[in-house]
Amino acid sequence: MSATDEYLKNNEDYARNFSGPLPLPPSRHVAVVACMDARLDVYRILGLAEGEAHVIRNAGGVVTDDEIRSLAISQRLLGTTEIILIHHTDCGMLTFTDDDFKRSIQEETGLKPQWAAEAFPDLEEDVRQSIRRIEASPFVTKHESLRGFVFDVATGKLNEVTA
Amino acid sequence: MSATDEYLKNNEDYARNFSGPLPLPPSRHVAVVACMDARLDVYRILGLAEGEAHVIRNAGGVVTDDEIRSLAISQRLLGTTEIILIHHTDCGMLTFTDDDFKRSIQEETGLKPQWAAEAFPDLEEDVRQSIRRIEASPFVTKHESLRGFVFDVATGKLNEVTA
Repeated sequence: MSATDEYLKNNEDYARNFSGPLPLPPSRHVAVVACMDARLDVYRILGLAEGEAHVIRNAGGVVTDDEIRSLAISQRLLGTTEIILIHHTDCGMLTFTDDDFKRSIQEETGLKPQWAAEAFPDLEEDVRQSIRRIEASPFVTKHESLRGFVFDVATGKLNEVTA
Repeated sequence: MSATDEYLKNNEDYARNFSGPLPLPPSRHVAVVACMDARLDVYRILGLAEGEAHVIRNAGGVVTDDEIRSLAISQRLLGTTEIILIHHTDCGMLTFTDDDFKRSIQEETGLKPQWAAEAFPDLEEDVRQSIRRIEASPFVTKHESLRGFVFDVATGKLNEVTA
């Protein structure tokens, strides 16, 4: 049995105890951008209840055009006004460089990705980079709060990154 | 008090009951790509435990270059071999068109986004589109399983999209 099949069985239990549909717009007007890391259960880390906040995730929790797209939709169509950025300790993005990763792909496939891998050597500096990319975007402008954090995978604690 | 501050207080409780660090690579070798919708608590929907699966999320759960980047890192550096795609009923992406969304931004800011908004009129067809984009990528090739689902926000159930 694949892991996917096991998760589908879990979903049957979830559906049995599921209570009705909630409204579409996030009730707490929050959008989170976090790393895809398997250890980050964002709903539990923040105590988010279903329906409260958009959760956007990718490798690193970095801000690229696709996060700008998601945040623009989140703010302009669904009314979010706070952004929470979450990177974390022991992140895979600290363990390689764009050049090496892209070269290994090119050696195997003959093709070099046209996108940046977005690896970074410093967690706090990359949180600041993500904040700056949002501040520089003409399309994500509706927030009253924009704050960045590093989640510590050893303690479960969010530590704020200051400017 | 902002929602962000409330969530930081929740995180103090989370950290108090947190048990130690888990390994970096996803233990079940799974990567999930899901919509950012606030009602999708992906860990609960699939019964994911911490450390088991990468979770990638954006507006719509669509596959753009940034999801290809995240999936390539997930598979090539962290060994995932199954992909689960999740769209959902009552999705915001069904409620607008790229043209209208981009025109409204242009009217307000003077700038037209250079990216597609990725709105779609048909859920199942967009899940198939996401599957095809992965199948067409030369960089995401290590999976043994690639399956797409529509999560029903009224029942909590995942319904598989067939080809």
